[in-house]
Parts: sequence; structure tokens; C-alpha cells
Amino acid sequence: MNKRGLLVIVSGPSGAGKGTVVSELIKDSSYALSISMTTRTPRETEQDGIHYFFKTVEEFEKMIEENGFLEYAKFCDNYYGTPLSYVEQKLDEGKNVILEIEVQGALQVKERYKDAILIFLTPPNITQLRERLEKRATETPEKIAMRMKRAKEEIKLIDKYDYIVINDIVEKATKSINDIVRIEKMAAKRHISLINTFLEGDN
Amino acid sequence: MNKRGLLVIVSGPSGAGKGTVVSELIKDSSYALSISMTTRTPRETEQDGIHYFFKTVEEFEKMIEENGFLEYAKFCDNYYGTPLSYVEQKLDEGKNVILEIEVQGALQVKERYKDAILIFLTPPNITQLRERLEKRATETPEKIAMRMKRAKEEIKLIDKYDYIVINDIVEKATKSINDIVRIEKMAAKRHISLINTFLEGDN
Repeated sequence: MNKRGLLVIVSGPSGAGKGTVVSELIKDSSYALSISMTTRTPRETEQDGIHYFFKTVEEFEKMIEENGFLEYAKFCDNYYGTPLSYVEQKLDEGKNVILEIEVQGALQVKERYKDAILIFLTPPNITQLRERLEKRATETPEKIAMRMKRAKEEIKLIDKYDYIVINDIVEKATKSINDIVRIEKMAAKRHISLINTFLEGDN
Repeated sequence: MNKRGLLVIVSGPSGAGKGTVVSELIKDSSYALSISMTTRTPRETEQDGIHYFFKTVEEFEKMIEENGFLEYAKFCDNYYGTPLSYVEQKLDEGKNVILEIEVQGALQVKERYKDAILIFLTPPNITQLRERLEKRATETPEKIAMRMKRAKEEIKLIDKYDYIVINDIVEKATKSINDIVRIEKMAAKRHISLINTFLEGDN
């Protein structure tokens, strides 16, 4: 019914399982993953235009001036951002563009792009969040404590989101996001053109 | 996740197939049909509390004064209305309450009850709407012309609706409404209580 794709922001606390769910979603060719832009040096396995768009600081800052990012931030002297033009191109191709991003970035994007669908992915409860973080071999107790503290701050922002998806079982969470996208395409605000179709179709 | 039911208003032009879709929906016991109240005389086959709540004019007007209707109207000297208390009772029982109603009444209900989900059911195009009306043996050409004129007025109001469901195939339209209800229950605004669950769950 509606040709243009939707921008779907998958966000939520660290440990919610965003990466796993997004990997499942993009197996379906109706989705495209947003590609970030960065000024950091590519790792050996990373390819420009696939893992990131790699740019110089000068190029990046020029794009900031030109309002070319849906959101951007600086970590450890490196810029990271979501270039608007790539997202727009994919939406125009009819793809639903997935943006996997932490909470603050997600809210920035929604501010800039009101039509985006903002999904808060979360484990069913905070005990499970802690368990998931503890299972990650890479996390020190300090890092876990920091992530838990941050998760509690982030959960307070759920009223800014459109949907809450409980990630208990990955397949179920993935299906929920698929259904959200399908149902959002039935939103009346996306079908105002039906008025003309009806008025002009019967004379 | 959410115990209380949702109020689902199925509306749209005459000939859209509201009755058929609603009959399908209520085969599922998670739904309850809203029952209208009227002052007209019951027909022989009609039972109080099943087809309608039958009341005297005096009783009906008292309920109007007490703000007891989600909407009401007077046709041919008889009152018809949707009593709020019955809807509330069913919602509290966890049922999703279906209200099948014409467009003006639907907008009145949404005004009064913001949390309701307003669905505009429509044939895919106006040619099909005309065909459906013409197939009804009961409709005179004058009546069809009047209904077509009204449908064109009603379609202009779709921006007031939440969702547009194209009723091309009844099973598909029914499934869409089922999915809308399921997805609406994931709306962030209905999960604000998660904040406390998270903050109190890990000490």
C-alpha cells in the first residue's frame, strides 16, 4: 500500500540483545541496515561502505555543518554518526531501514525524524539484564555496575519511545518488530492519499 | 503483559463490511462486543442485554445527564447510545471491546476516550464500495447515491483515525485488526509501569 520504507530504530540498554535481533531482522530483504560514518581508522577486516563509511575529520565536520547527520557523537577523539543521505536513499528504494543505536542517539534521531518508529528492546526484567551482562566474558564487575546504572537511567525514558518489545525469546522479539512495521504501515497518517483516490475514483 | 483490554472502534462507510469483520473477530474470546442502549421497542427476536439494552426515554435521558454514554444520537424519535459502564466492565475483565459504529459516532467516542483504537475499514477503492452497495437487494438507487455521497464525506476524515484497514479479503482484514490490537499493547505509553519494575527489581 505504501511504497516508501520506514525508519525503525532498535534501541535499549546494553545487554538487551539488540545485535542478535537486528541480525535476524535483516535476513529479510525488505530491511536495510543503516551504516554509520566514522573518522576512526578501519580495522583490518573492515570495509568502507559495508561496516562503516570511513571519513577524515575534515570531511566529517563539513557534513556536520551541512546538517548531514541524523545523529552524531564523539568518543575517544573519534566521530561516529548516522548519515541522513544513506538512510533516505534506502527508504526511497522501499527498504525499511534499521538503525541499531544506544538510547541517547535514538532519542536524537527521533527528534530529527519524527516519522521514525522508536523501539525499546529490553529483557523481561532487570535480573535477566544483569545475568546477560555477567555472561559476557569481556565485562569487568566495574563495567557491569556502570551498565546497570545506565540501564536504570535509560528505562526512565521509555515514555519517549513508541513501542516496548520484551526480548525474552529472540524469534518472538523479531516477529514482534516485523509485525510493528507491518501495522505501522496501516497508520492512517500514512494513507492521507486515499482521500483523493476515493474522491477521484467515482464520477 | 497488559491486563486491561483495549477499546477497538471499527468504523468506516456503509458497505465496507464492518459487520462481517466484527462477526469474525468476536469468535475469539479475547473480544467482547459493545452492546448499545436504545429506547426503541424490542423486535420479537431481540433480547435485553444481548442485542440491546432496552430502556425508557426517561431512563435514557437520566443517563445522558449523568454522562453515562461514550456517544449517543437520536434517530426517528428513538435514542441509541453506547453505555460507558458496560464497556468499562468488559475492559476491566481484560476483554478487548469492539465497538462497531458509523463514522460520526466513532469520532465522538475517540474524543471522549482517547485511548481507544480507531480503525477505518474500507474497500480498496470506491468502485468496489459502489458494487457492494448495489449487490444489497435492499438498497434503492436513491439510497445508494446517498450512501456514496456520505462515504466521500467520511473518507475526508481519515486523518482522525489511527489505522486504515483495507477490507479486500475478510480473513486478511480480521487478521490485521487482531495484529493491531496485539501491537498496540506493546505501545510504550501502556508500559510506563516497567520503570518501577526495573528500578525496584535490582538492589
